[in-house]
Amino acid sequence: MYHKINQSIIDQLKTIVEARNILTERDELLDYSHDEYSLDDISSYPDVVVKPPDAEAVSKIVQLCNQENIPLTARGGGTGLCGACVPVFGGVVMTFENMHQILEIDTHNLTATVESGLTLMDFYPAIEEKGLFFPPHPGDETATIGGVIATNAGGARAVKYGVIRNFVTGIEVVLPTGEIVNLGGKFVKNSTGYSLMHLMIGSEGTLGIITKATISLMAPPKELMTLVVPYDNLHDAISTVPAIIEKKILPMAVEFLELETAILSGKHLNKTWPCTQGSAHLMIIVDGTSEDEVMSLAETISEVCLDHNALEVFAADTRSKQRDILDIRSSIYEAMRPYMLEILDITVPRSQIAHFVDSVNAVAEKSDMWLPTYGHAADGNVHTHLMRYRWQNDEWHEIENWDEKYQTVRKELHDLGKKYQGICSGEHGIGIVKKEYLKSFLEPQQIELMRGIKKVFDPGAILNPGKIFD
Amino acid sequence: MYHKINQSIIDQLKTIVEARNILTERDELLDYSHDEYSLDDISSYPDVVVKPPDAEAVSKIVQLCNQENIPLTARGGGTGLCGACVPVFGGVVMTFENMHQILEIDTHNLTATVESGLTLMDFYPAIEEKGLFFPPHPGDETATIGGVIATNAGGARAVKYGVIRNFVTGIEVVLPTGEIVNLGGKFVKNSTGYSLMHLMIGSEGTLGIITKATISLMAPPKELMTLVVPYDNLHDAISTVPAIIEKKILPMAVEFLELETAILSGKHLNKTWPCTQGSAHLMIIVDGTSEDEVMSLAETISEVCLDHNALEVFAADTRSKQRDILDIRSSIYEAMRPYMLEILDITVPRSQIAHFVDSVNAVAEKSDMWLPTYGHAADGNVHTHLMRYRWQNDEWHEIENWDEKYQTVRKELHDLGKKYQGICSGEHGIGIVKKEYLKSFLEPQQIELMRGIKKVFDPGAILNPGKIFD
Repeated sequence: MYHKINQSIIDQLKTIVEARNILTERDELLDYSHDEYSLDDISSYPDVVVKPPDAEAVSKIVQLCNQENIPLTARGGGTGLCGACVPVFGGVVMTFENMHQILEIDTHNLTATVESGLTLMDFYPAIEEKGLFFPPHPGDETATIGGVIATNAGGARAVKYGVIRNFVTGIEVVLPTGEIVNLGGKFVKNSTGYSLMHLMIGSEGTLGIITKATISLMAPPKELMTLVVPYDNLHDAISTVPAIIEKKILPMAVEFLELETAILSGKHLNKTWPCTQGSAHLMIIVDGTSEDEVMSLAETISEVCLDHNALEVFAADTRSKQRDILDIRSSIYEAMRPYMLEILDITVPRSQIAHFVDSVNAVAEKSDMWLPTYGHAADGNVHTHLMRYRWQNDEWHEIENWDEKYQTVRKELHDLGKKYQGICSGEHGIGIVKKEYLKSFLEPQQIELMRGIKKVFDPGAILNPGKIFD
Repeated sequence: MYHKINQSIIDQLKTIVEARNILTERDELLDYSHDEYSLDDISSYPDVVVKPPDAEAVSKIVQLCNQENIPLTARGGGTGLCGACVPVFGGVVMTFENMHQILEIDTHNLTATVESGLTLMDFYPAIEEKGLFFPPHPGDETATIGGVIATNAGGARAVKYGVIRNFVTGIEVVLPTGEIVNLGGKFVKNSTGYSLMHLMIGSEGTLGIITKATISLMAPPKELMTLVVPYDNLHDAISTVPAIIEKKILPMAVEFLELETAILSGKHLNKTWPCTQGSAHLMIIVDGTSEDEVMSLAETISEVCLDHNALEVFAADTRSKQRDILDIRSSIYEAMRPYMLEILDITVPRSQIAHFVDSVNAVAEKSDMWLPTYGHAADGNVHTHLMRYRWQNDEWHEIENWDEKYQTVRKELHDLGKKYQGICSGEHGIGIVKKEYLKSFLEPQQIELMRGIKKVFDPGAILNPGKIFD
C-alpha cells in the first residue's frame, strides 16, 4: 500500500537536511523502532530517520512523503507507553533533537515559545530561572514539548492546575500537505471558529506535526508542603480523597501507592521513603501563598485522613525531603519497568477509584498475577502495572504462565474501567496497544467522526498510520 | 436549496413535542429572528420554533430535519452579539427552555451536570448553595449553559481561572444524524483519541446540538478585594497591566474603562461608581485564601499602579461595594446598547493592548466617530463600541453620517487587530457578522480544514447553515 524508500528518496532527503541528520543503518534505526512499551511484538523499524533543523525542512520532508506515498511518523522523546511513535509501516521517522530552542520567554504575557524538540528537562530550569512555573509534570523529563502536546500528557501535578491542554495557547503545525499553519497564539481567550489547536492536542501525530508551541506559565507556588499518610489498606487511603475534595481543598497532587512499591523505588534511587508504617500510603502536595495557609490546609487534610483510619500523618517541610518523596513516587515506574509487561492508565471519576482499585485487587488475587496499582488519586488516573515478575523475599520471581494470563487480565481490567464509568487512557494515549479497547470505551459514531477528521487532514494517510483507530 | 416547512412537517413535529411547544405565528417568531446584534440587516425569521423536552426529542427533530433537508438552528438565551443563532435560511429554531434541569451537583467530584437550557442566572445560586464556585462570568446571566459552551464564552473573571472551555469536562451532543453521543465525562484527564468535545466547544451549533454538560467547579475564593484605580489617560492605565503580571500576580479580573462609560452605566443602574478622578480607570479583583494574602496582593498592585502614574487607588472591601462596582462594569454594554451599532471583541496579546487601544482612539479622532473602548486588560480581550450616538452635554446626539463611516471604521479596527497580532473574536464568536473578517485572521488552510470537518459531521449542512465560514 505504501511505497518503500529507495535511494532516490534518500537523495532527495539529503537536499533538505544534512547527511549526518539522516540515519539509514539498521543498528542506528533500532532505537527508533519502539518506545517504552515493554514487549517486542509491536516494534517496527523505520527505513530512515531524519532530523530536520526547522519547520521549513519539516514541510519539505512532509511534502516529499506525501508525493511519494511514504508513511511519516513524528517522534518526541520516545518516552511513550503505547507505541504511538512506532513506525508500523516503516517509512520515515522524524525526530526533533535539532529543534530544541527556547525562542522566547515573555514575562509580560507569561508565555514561553519553544521548538517542539525541547525536553522537559531543559524547559523546567529555563523558566524557573525567570521565576516562572509550568505545573504539568508527566514524569519522564526526557519527554519533549511536542510529544507531551501530541499525547495531552498529565502527570501528578494536574489535580489543581490541569493537564498539558490547559497550558497550550498556540502551536505551529505542519499539515500533511506541507503547509505551515499557526493555531492559537498568545491568547487567553479565543472564539474564532473551530479550535483546530485543541483537535491537534492529543492527536498523536496523526493530523499534523507540531513544530513550535506557546505555553502559558504561572508564578511558582510560594509555599509547599508534602504529606505522606500511611493506612492499613488501599481502600481506606483512596476513600479519604473524595472527603478531602469535599472540604473544597484541591491539593496540587494526591497520589496513592503501596508501601512495597515505594520501597522498591527507593532502593532503585538509593533514597528512603519517609515512613514504613501501614501498607498503603497517600502522598499529598499542598501549595499556597503563605506558610500559614499551607499549615492550615495541611491541618485540615490531616484531620480528614485521621478520620478515615490513617495511622499517622508525616509532613515533609524542607525542599530536599519533598524532592526525595516526589522522586521516589516518580520513579516507581522506572524501578518496576524491567519486570513488567505494561502500565495501564485507565481513568475513572475520582469518586470511583476506591471501588475500581478493590476490583483490580480481586482480579490479581483470582488470577495470581501481581498488579501493583498506584496513581493520581484526585484526578482518577490509575496506573496498574501488569507484572511479569513478582517481588518476594527480596528477589524477583517470574510469574508462572504470565503469558497465558496477560491478555485475559488486561481485558478484565479494561472491563472494570468501563464498569466504573472510566476511559481507557487519561494521559498515555492510545497508540497501538490500546486500539483494541478504544471501541469499547467510545461510541462507534465517535470513532467514525475521528476517521472522517483524519481523512480531512490527511487524505493520503501518510501521518503516523496504524494508530488510535486506524 | 433547503426545503420549506409545510403542514406535514408541522404535523410530524407535533408527534414529537406537544403542540404548545411549537410556535408558527409570525408575531411569536419575531423574538427568534435575531440575537443582540443591533442592526436589523441580519435578522431572519424561522418558519417554526420548537421547544423539545429532552435529548430524545431533540434527536427525533434533528432526524426529521435531516431527512427533509430543513435547516435547524439551536438557540440558547439569545444573548449572542454576532448573529450566531439567527436562522439565515429559515427552517427550525430549537430552544431549550424546557431543558433547564440541574441533574446533579456532585460534591465528591466537584462537578455539576445540567441540561443545556439552564441559564447562568439559575446556575450560579444553585452551586453557591452547595458552597461551590464557577468562575466564568460572561456578563449576561440570561445566557444558557449550552449557549456559552457553543461560543466558548469568557467574561471578566477569565484572567486567573480561564474561559468556559477550561471548565467543561463532558457534554452530551445530538449529532446531525440524530445519534446521541457522550463526549468526555467526569474526568480531569482524557487522552482517548481526538477531543471531539473540544472541537464542539465554540463551534456555534454547526457540528452538533449540546443537550447536557458536566462542568467542573471549585471552592469559592475565601477573600476578595476590588480596586478601582484612576489615571489621566487609558494608555497609562493599560500599560500598568503587564507590569502587574510581571510581578507574577494574576488577579481574578483586570478591567480597563473610561470614567465616562462608568458614569453612563452607573446612571443606567442608579448606582455610583466609587471614584470620579482622572478619565481612565482600572478595575482589579484580587482573590486569596486569607485577608493577609489579599491585603498584601493589593499593596503590591497599588505600588505598581502608582509607579505607572495612577492618581490614587480606591479599595472596595465590602461585598456590597464590590458587587456595585462589578454590576456597573458589567452593565456598560447594556447602558450603551440602544445607542450603538456593534460591540467588537478583538483580542490581542496582553502586552499589545495599550498600543492597540491608542490606535483605536486615533481612528475615532480621525473619523469623528465615538468608539468607547473597555475590556479585559489582562487577557487582551478588548471591547470597542461602534456608536451611532454620542453622549455630550448630558444628552445623546446622533453622529453625522454614521452609516457611511460604519463599515470603513469597522474594517480599520480589524486591520489594527491584525497588526497587533490579534484575533477577531476572543469570546463572542463569529456567527454572521464577523464572517467577513475570519479569512483575514486565519490562514486559508485553517478555514478549509473547518469546512472539511463540518462536512464530516453534517454532510447535509442542516445545522445552523450560513455561519462562521459558510
